[in-house]
Amino acid sequence: MLTAEFLAKLTAIVGETNLLTDPVDCYAYAYDNSRKIFPPLAVAFAISQEQIQAILLCCNEYRIPITPRGRGTGTAGGSLPEQGGLALSLERMSRIISIDPANRIIIAEPGVLNQEIQDAARPHGFFWPPDPSSAPFCTIGGNLATSAGGPHAVKYGTTRDHVLGLKAITGKGELIKAGCNTTKGVVGYDLTRLLIGSEGTLAIITEATLKLTPLPQSTGGITAHYKNIQSCAKAIAAIMAQPKIPSALEFLDKASLDLIRSRNTGLLPDDTHAMLMIEVDGSDVEINETGQAILTACKNEGLIKSERVIDSKALWVARKALSPLLRDIAPKKINEDVVVPVSRLPELLQGLTELSQKYRIANANFGHAGNGNIHVNLLVNPDNPDEMNRAEACLSEVFNLVLALNGTLSGEHGIGSEKRAYVGLEIDSVTMNLMKEIKHVFDPNNILNPGKLFPKG
Amino acid sequence: MLTAEFLAKLTAIVGETNLLTDPVDCYAYAYDNSRKIFPPLAVAFAISQEQIQAILLCCNEYRIPITPRGRGTGTAGGSLPEQGGLALSLERMSRIISIDPANRIIIAEPGVLNQEIQDAARPHGFFWPPDPSSAPFCTIGGNLATSAGGPHAVKYGTTRDHVLGLKAITGKGELIKAGCNTTKGVVGYDLTRLLIGSEGTLAIITEATLKLTPLPQSTGGITAHYKNIQSCAKAIAAIMAQPKIPSALEFLDKASLDLIRSRNTGLLPDDTHAMLMIEVDGSDVEINETGQAILTACKNEGLIKSERVIDSKALWVARKALSPLLRDIAPKKINEDVVVPVSRLPELLQGLTELSQKYRIANANFGHAGNGNIHVNLLVNPDNPDEMNRAEACLSEVFNLVLALNGTLSGEHGIGSEKRAYVGLEIDSVTMNLMKEIKHVFDPNNILNPGKLFPKG
Repeated sequence: MLTAEFLAKLTAIVGETNLLTDPVDCYAYAYDNSRKIFPPLAVAFAISQEQIQAILLCCNEYRIPITPRGRGTGTAGGSLPEQGGLALSLERMSRIISIDPANRIIIAEPGVLNQEIQDAARPHGFFWPPDPSSAPFCTIGGNLATSAGGPHAVKYGTTRDHVLGLKAITGKGELIKAGCNTTKGVVGYDLTRLLIGSEGTLAIITEATLKLTPLPQSTGGITAHYKNIQSCAKAIAAIMAQPKIPSALEFLDKASLDLIRSRNTGLLPDDTHAMLMIEVDGSDVEINETGQAILTACKNEGLIKSERVIDSKALWVARKALSPLLRDIAPKKINEDVVVPVSRLPELLQGLTELSQKYRIANANFGHAGNGNIHVNLLVNPDNPDEMNRAEACLSEVFNLVLALNGTLSGEHGIGSEKRAYVGLEIDSVTMNLMKEIKHVFDPNNILNPGKLFPKG
Repeated sequence: MLTAEFLAKLTAIVGETNLLTDPVDCYAYAYDNSRKIFPPLAVAFAISQEQIQAILLCCNEYRIPITPRGRGTGTAGGSLPEQGGLALSLERMSRIISIDPANRIIIAEPGVLNQEIQDAARPHGFFWPPDPSSAPFCTIGGNLATSAGGPHAVKYGTTRDHVLGLKAITGKGELIKAGCNTTKGVVGYDLTRLLIGSEGTLAIITEATLKLTPLPQSTGGITAHYKNIQSCAKAIAAIMAQPKIPSALEFLDKASLDLIRSRNTGLLPDDTHAMLMIEVDGSDVEINETGQAILTACKNEGLIKSERVIDSKALWVARKALSPLLRDIAPKKINEDVVVPVSRLPELLQGLTELSQKYRIANANFGHAGNGNIHVNLLVNPDNPDEMNRAEACLSEVFNLVLALNGTLSGEHGIGSEKRAYVGLEIDSVTMNLMKEIKHVFDPNNILNPGKLFPKG
């Protein structure tokens, strides 16, 4: 329960029009793309750094849990108000503060959409490389909170590589300034990257200085079709072992291809059991050179055909629609984003096939293969308790396999609440305790997105 | 004074041959390239992670300050054993643990030289981008401690962009594991980059997983000569405002050019008052395209001539020799590495000229202009107290100018002990206190490189 006194203080900070307390209204802020539901007791919309600071001080005073939120597109439960309390939506802090093409910088508030950053940068010949599938409707605040990736990370890196500095309010309500305005800077500890990927557990980002990258002159596409998953996995390793880096290298297994075929008649040949969708970018000559090197690396005994694609738009639309399509056939799919070193991909994909058979759980695997980042989707019926038990056991083995292959549990989605049960498999207890102590420095009353990112209990 | 008991414990950990206590021997570990002298009371050489952990536990028990050290090439005093105690040299932890070209990774101990990493990567078609001038004799541990840059950072970024994971022993003696083995990973807080650039104040790095980059096919050179510093600064901004990024963009002012002329007769024309040394890399076609774009951007009213250079080796040798040459003419030069946004370089260079005149302090300015990173060298005679006073006042104004231009005090050297007096100008007290609390989490007894990085007192 939130007291009248607390709510009166909140109202004084943000104004009546920026505070929701009706449970019906609050329900719209109860979920994210993990599809779990945790209604907050109130929702506040901040429109300034000063308001965020005042809200955090107030929540500290009354010990009210506060969960920051962009547009709720995360898949790991990071923005769920699990302990009730206050949801703080940053969607109304949507100002691009400045565009400075001469220094390749955009300074923006956290509620700006990823796509709005791209639209602002493009006329100046730049883009901001992080490009999750949700780019048209996710916020940069959320991108920063999870260190979001996307298909182009194989060439351009993830969010943490494209931010120069931040302003933020810590859990205890202090305004801090991290990083700088230049592409080089080593004064003090790197708080910028400590906050990036911290899933809103340390501080609420109020302003980000984003580093822009020149738009490639043009892009080209290549598709490669394989008889089986093993030959496809070998080709991925071969492509990444040679120096010409693709700008995207996406893998699709048979289940994913079948799903695309079911909605796009004639788009894909029937005998393709695994496929690569490859993008190269640069000048025409670079595209030609890189494309040639990649076509050579694609060749092995399992290759059916590989070819350059003049207009790859239809394929990308199909690829980007995969996640929502999977929702249609399995609304409660268990969606993971594990990563292994690319040379271990053949072992991972073989192992996933075996685990699917062992536990009789259908799965569909696709993803950003150039980084070794595979989206493993266990397609389950939540009303079948036996299947759910098998899926849980299967998932546990998937994670053990990933770690045995020297991989990591999450490449871009984060831990949130969904992977808390497994994070202890990857991070040892000493390192975990150190992270908890860092959390305590930023948020001594543990009111900021409490319970997220760390193992339960 | 170190007690016999403490020294006996140290001897038991590292063995007699890895411990120096004779003041004459210890003196060799008393300095770095800041040219200050602080002799440690003992020097230990660790050869394993376990030894480092045992040493840190022992130093905690006896409250002995411990200063980690690579090869002492740092310029900011970061490795000076300022409070006596123990110097911990990592030069004997010089093993490359594994080379994994398929996954573009080298795992190495901290005492491996930067050049040894390059030599190990090259046969596989890769390099590790950080390339400080001291590359042949500096360690990667030191590179990590300072987040070292170098001329190629303009295209490839600095050390923090090229490390996937770390093992380290914290100040309180706990082994932690940060990051992962893959190019994507978002599990837990980013301790990797928190340690990079922390100047050995949080933990001692015992193992680093370095991310390799494909070697460019070839490189090309361009030189551009200017009548005055203002037109040269304008050209830098023009080059960086267009999308074709050079792999190096080095600026030299008249004083730097005169110094090179004095040792390399005929290398440079007499009327050049400012100069750019530019490198481009890639395929022949890319070099041609990027080179053409840069030659166009170089053009303005102050350009004397710009030209492609077939063999740029002689120029690079001259450029890399500049810092040592400056030592010859001014052994106690005050050497800074400030950074401003590239569009503000004209104002910075104009301001430096004015401050040099105002305080009657000769200076030489050169550096990594593509990042806005200028090495400001105040050439002073330490035996002239009046000149030293004027230099101090001048330096203070230099830093104020840099911050007024939205810059940062250090792009690659760090704070160490040399810039402690100024760090409070850039980092506000709230953020500074948070950094101190983080330091306390890692090193509660403040024995690990105590006093460095933070303002005094």
